[in-house]
Amino acid sequence: MADLTLAVDAMGGDAGLPVTVPAVKALLAEHAGVRILMVGQPEPLAEALAQHQLSDHPRLQVVPANDVVLMDDPVAVAMRVKKDSSLRVAVNQVKEGRAQAMVSAGNTGALMAVSRFVLKTLPGIERPAICTAIPTQTGHCHMLDLGANVDSEAEHLLQFALMGSALARALGQPQPRVALLNIGEEDIKGNELIKDAARQLQAHPQLHYTGFIEGNGIFAGEADVVVCDGFVGNVALKTMEGVAGMFSHVIREQINQSWWRKLSGLASLPILNGLKQRLDPERYNGASLVGLNGVVVKSHGGAGEKGFLFALRVALQEAERNVPALIQSALAASSPETP
Amino acid sequence: MADLTLAVDAMGGDAGLPVTVPAVKALLAEHAGVRILMVGQPEPLAEALAQHQLSDHPRLQVVPANDVVLMDDPVAVAMRVKKDSSLRVAVNQVKEGRAQAMVSAGNTGALMAVSRFVLKTLPGIERPAICTAIPTQTGHCHMLDLGANVDSEAEHLLQFALMGSALARALGQPQPRVALLNIGEEDIKGNELIKDAARQLQAHPQLHYTGFIEGNGIFAGEADVVVCDGFVGNVALKTMEGVAGMFSHVIREQINQSWWRKLSGLASLPILNGLKQRLDPERYNGASLVGLNGVVVKSHGGAGEKGFLFALRVALQEAERNVPALIQSALAASSPETP
Repeated sequence: MADLTLAVDAMGGDAGLPVTVPAVKALLAEHAGVRILMVGQPEPLAEALAQHQLSDHPRLQVVPANDVVLMDDPVAVAMRVKKDSSLRVAVNQVKEGRAQAMVSAGNTGALMAVSRFVLKTLPGIERPAICTAIPTQTGHCHMLDLGANVDSEAEHLLQFALMGSALARALGQPQPRVALLNIGEEDIKGNELIKDAARQLQAHPQLHYTGFIEGNGIFAGEADVVVCDGFVGNVALKTMEGVAGMFSHVIREQINQSWWRKLSGLASLPILNGLKQRLDPERYNGASLVGLNGVVVKSHGGAGEKGFLFALRVALQEAERNVPALIQSALAASSPETP
Repeated sequence: MADLTLAVDAMGGDAGLPVTVPAVKALLAEHAGVRILMVGQPEPLAEALAQHQLSDHPRLQVVPANDVVLMDDPVAVAMRVKKDSSLRVAVNQVKEGRAQAMVSAGNTGALMAVSRFVLKTLPGIERPAICTAIPTQTGHCHMLDLGANVDSEAEHLLQFALMGSALARALGQPQPRVALLNIGEEDIKGNELIKDAARQLQAHPQLHYTGFIEGNGIFAGEADVVVCDGFVGNVALKTMEGVAGMFSHVIREQINQSWWRKLSGLASLPILNGLKQRLDPERYNGASLVGLNGVVVKSHGGAGEKGFLFALRVALQEAERNVPALIQSALAASSPETP
């Protein structure tokens, strides 16, 4: 791993410092070449660093920021009032070339708006998108957009496809299969937006477009990149979380039903733990804001230390492979053919 | 249970007769007051009935239909070419008053188009919707639309809310909490369609509207009726199926990993079976086509005998409570206030 610097919004997320500081400590231990700019309110941050024996870490530097964007702050407040927030100052580090990526568990809307304002979008990109890895039966796929854009047009879906494909290639898929999320696999299904987008993806020489995919096909591993409007993608993502949560709830309920079940629950712990590990949402934490002039990764607001560490690793990988440059060259190569 | 007659499309679904005939046999045994009109191709149907000792059942009558709508037949073929299909002849039984409900596991698009053409929509309903019960941590909720309508407008979402609310009341929820599926719970989130629909649902005196719900909120039991456009609803429904399928797959994978795990898998069978039973998709089979002048229930095409039996029970309940009349009176009562 080359010498890289990550800017971390130390204050963001439901928990803030108690999650971000130990996760950063773990990352520093994992990667000897990595430097961290820890952005936050100086006093509580110094205290948390001291508590984790990080006060004098040679590869960690504190960058002061006096404000904090709250999880329910309107975007306008993050943009116009809290200009000295840890979120914004961390994005500034990327803009000013002091860091190659930034990570925040803060307010998604604020992070998108600030990143877009500070870093700007790549040439040819109208709308950045949110992209994350989703576990499937055979491994994982990348899905976008997950909520940055509602009411996307067909051209936006094409851009999402190009960006997702470049990201998947950067992360090791040589020829990612790109599919369009729809309510049926037949050509006649879906609304006008989807039919129009399908024509554009089909015609694009740079994409390995494989056709429509349904909600259940995502998990069967039928595609490497799943493209959709942000409204639909966000509903699908939250639905996954909801179903997974219900499974855990019902498993606990079943185990607690009788002493015999408690005993068999004990016996089945390796299986349930294996299940948990394979599908653990923390392992899939870290959504990329793609289409920007810089690497920005959003951690789930409720992620724990382990989840935040996964988000840090995503940022590191994307910075190492310079995903924004890869996306830009994918777009540039394809622009003559784009309608 | 009053004297009721169900028309059953005996040929519909991936399996057809091997599923529909034994399910009908189970229903006849369960409900002494119920009569069945079994609609299908006379020869194979007679053979299947004989095989299940149903040839001379006093409450089962065969209605011949020479065609079968295939799962991938275009809607136009079902509508214009196969006028003597089991699907269509079964819908005709409801139209002509010989049955109080019909059930088919056939092609959804064809079933919707034929039902709409033959039965017509209720006064004031522009678009029928597909509604089904979804398991939640606390019980279940009803969700619509699940794919009949793409590109719904705000007024359609209002009609879905009224229909879903009437259905939930008919099935035993005295004051169903109605929520609108969105990508955040704050008022500022979502696209224009959702914001407009929220205003209309909020203003409606007959609805107990509780605000926005996110994909994960569905399973937490936050609402009794979840309203959405058919594109979004279908993606969410298929996503649920996909996640549930992946869980089963991973559980099997985990159990088969070693002899010790196979042994503990055996010990944990009651828990896994309890889990399966609580969340079994077959138990939630049977989606209602609401907004029509008659009860039409769609079984999942791949449902087994048990699943098809659940769909038959849904049809029976709705026929018994005369859901179309309840929806009509909910709409009539509310129409003066509707914008």
